[in-house]
Amino acid sequence: MKVDLLIHNASELLTLAGPQRARRGEEMSDLAIVAGGSVAVDAGLIIDVGSASQLADRYHPLRTIDASGKVVMPGFVDPHTHPVFVHTRENEFEMRVQGKSYVEISQSGGGIRSSINAVREASEDELFELALRRVRRMICQGTTTLEAKSGYGLSTDSEMKMLRVIRRLDEALPIDIVPTFLGAHEFPVEFKDDHEAYISILCDEMLPAVSREGLAEYCDIFTEAHVYSVEESRRVLNRAKELGLRIRMHADEIEPIGGAELAAEVGAVSADHLGAASDEGIIAMRDAGVIAVLLPGTIFSLGLPNYARARDMIAAGLPVALATDYNPGSCNCDSMSFIITLACLQMKMNVAEAITAATVNAAWSLDMGDKVGAIEVGKQADILVMDMPGYRFLPYHFGSSSVETVIKNGSLFVKNEIKNF
Amino acid sequence: MKVDLLIHNASELLTLAGPQRARRGEEMSDLAIVAGGSVAVDAGLIIDVGSASQLADRYHPLRTIDASGKVVMPGFVDPHTHPVFVHTRENEFEMRVQGKSYVEISQSGGGIRSSINAVREASEDELFELALRRVRRMICQGTTTLEAKSGYGLSTDSEMKMLRVIRRLDEALPIDIVPTFLGAHEFPVEFKDDHEAYISILCDEMLPAVSREGLAEYCDIFTEAHVYSVEESRRVLNRAKELGLRIRMHADEIEPIGGAELAAEVGAVSADHLGAASDEGIIAMRDAGVIAVLLPGTIFSLGLPNYARARDMIAAGLPVALATDYNPGSCNCDSMSFIITLACLQMKMNVAEAITAATVNAAWSLDMGDKVGAIEVGKQADILVMDMPGYRFLPYHFGSSSVETVIKNGSLFVKNEIKNF
Repeated sequence: MKVDLLIHNASELLTLAGPQRARRGEEMSDLAIVAGGSVAVDAGLIIDVGSASQLADRYHPLRTIDASGKVVMPGFVDPHTHPVFVHTRENEFEMRVQGKSYVEISQSGGGIRSSINAVREASEDELFELALRRVRRMICQGTTTLEAKSGYGLSTDSEMKMLRVIRRLDEALPIDIVPTFLGAHEFPVEFKDDHEAYISILCDEMLPAVSREGLAEYCDIFTEAHVYSVEESRRVLNRAKELGLRIRMHADEIEPIGGAELAAEVGAVSADHLGAASDEGIIAMRDAGVIAVLLPGTIFSLGLPNYARARDMIAAGLPVALATDYNPGSCNCDSMSFIITLACLQMKMNVAEAITAATVNAAWSLDMGDKVGAIEVGKQADILVMDMPGYRFLPYHFGSSSVETVIKNGSLFVKNEIKNF
Repeated sequence: MKVDLLIHNASELLTLAGPQRARRGEEMSDLAIVAGGSVAVDAGLIIDVGSASQLADRYHPLRTIDASGKVVMPGFVDPHTHPVFVHTRENEFEMRVQGKSYVEISQSGGGIRSSINAVREASEDELFELALRRVRRMICQGTTTLEAKSGYGLSTDSEMKMLRVIRRLDEALPIDIVPTFLGAHEFPVEFKDDHEAYISILCDEMLPAVSREGLAEYCDIFTEAHVYSVEESRRVLNRAKELGLRIRMHADEIEPIGGAELAAEVGAVSADHLGAASDEGIIAMRDAGVIAVLLPGTIFSLGLPNYARARDMIAAGLPVALATDYNPGSCNCDSMSFIITLACLQMKMNVAEAITAATVNAAWSLDMGDKVGAIEVGKQADILVMDMPGYRFLPYHFGSSSVETVIKNGSLFVKNEIKNF
């Protein structure tokens, strides 16, 4: 049988095959590896997975990628990013290193408000060109499915502008980009003393507009002390649900105010950060089927100690996913490989758990596990060829990328090679 | 005047110009930046540095690199690496994550002894091909001068084999590679109960052979509790000095046994690691002109808390350099950019200090500061064009590389580009 592509004879083919839901507990340690494995791809889909000799007999590929001595795995799914903004904020990084407080950084003109001011003034085209370059870098690092949030506009016009940019990114780039409305990222400065008025705008103006134009699949909110309380969050999220949006949340990043519990209550698809989530919150999330999206890059980049309790979550049977949290303030990291390194070193996830969290569980955290995140027949051919002798090399080696080839929907988009000079 | 190359109009040209010695104290924060700066290169050397308009008038370049909107800086100097070995040891990474001890890892067949067994059995050609690929990756990450150690042979034949591999790397690759003899990396298992006999071999057989064949510029030793005592180290190092080798040391990585003090006593060019160096050791090193080479990647990759006290060292006037410590066991990191990120986040170095430590001070730690590490007239044209708006972006952005162009001795060796797909 003729097929478009055969990825041939990987030392380790990490299929991540298994139940059609997020992996929990010991399931997270099972990468469903085929040693000496091949993948047949046609019309953008995976049509066969098995031993190299079997597939070599069965198919006549138009193109073959020799994966001998290499690891083949699903493309990374990055389920929490903020790639649409104007300027990077590297000055704040150095201020934090020097011990400056959040308030001092904010008073010096930095912080999220500087991103908001710039996004409000920027044109849609400018935002698009800037974000395009950033997402291309992510693709070169192996990300084949991406969630992207608004949230640096905080006015109806500028939030809609950001969401249109995200839609254009999805159209312009080969990867899947899932749009999330994050109008409740902060309170805009003009409403800092009148939260009620801004929440009304969120519920009565922004959310209906976003829903009407179909610009977002998800509604997210920053539920945290000094930002959106649990009460305020509940109101916004229930309104979003009424309008047909699904829910993800920034929850319990710094203080355990009950964000995880609220995520369970409203039936969120994911709750993210969770550095301070309570035991009760973890259990509630598990029982409600919410997926924990952990963001260790942010804790690393902020120089903080409070990594999320991944081990406790896995022990409790809560499915864990990983994301970069790529953003201009707290984490300018575009590599899921490095996030896996941090997950192992700082949250003591074993390597297989971290890879599961960065692929199939991340896919389910976007409710896309039926299409991406695993190398199984019928799923999108989103596949990485990794220049490494075995999967444990992935977090062990850091600094440069081991992603050699990035395949999205069966097409080859990136081939990173070490030049012979 | 005709010249080979003009690097034109960098937003920030970090020259690192200054006194012809390692920088200390507040000098480390001075990158000697030329805004809108250009560099003229001819016959592999820097022949002029100044404002873009001045140099554009003065020179007719055969080739021009437009550095508008970018940062131009000296190539990284990585003064502590172990790139010659057979297999990577990623299984040990996961064992450490799971809380296994050094002894358990060693008993399972891992640890440095597994690298030693493999190197002894490998052919010179095999070692060369494996290391060549690793060093090419380092060059792609912006390293233009590299120190490389033997130390996985621990017999005269196999140590000489490693040093010949390092010489071949230097000949085959465009960058400068400085060879260091590290026969005293450990005690080989066959001498574990007779240290005296191995030290005699080091002093009476290996060091004379290395010196006779001119295979190493430096002699290094692992001075640490349970490895080489201060007394044993003194004996080996003094013998190396007699034979014309200069000294660098692995000192006080884990326990403060007086390694830093010994480095001062023997006039070492550098003492490296220093996570447990005493106040007295820091002062002694400063007074003796020893440079501290700090290796935060190793502490990060081992998941340990004891980063070296860079702030105390800088406050004491001790010059600080940075290196990757690239090796198969404790740190498989090949990116000086990421080491700079760690230096800022974990050792609270400011960004300029970390860049100074990774360029001009690293060059002086190899006694090569007269030739490399700064963009000054007469020095080698070892130059990076960095895709970043300002130098503070370097540690702030992590995951993917911002190194766009790598120039060594005036020739362009790497051009990393984001593909437009």
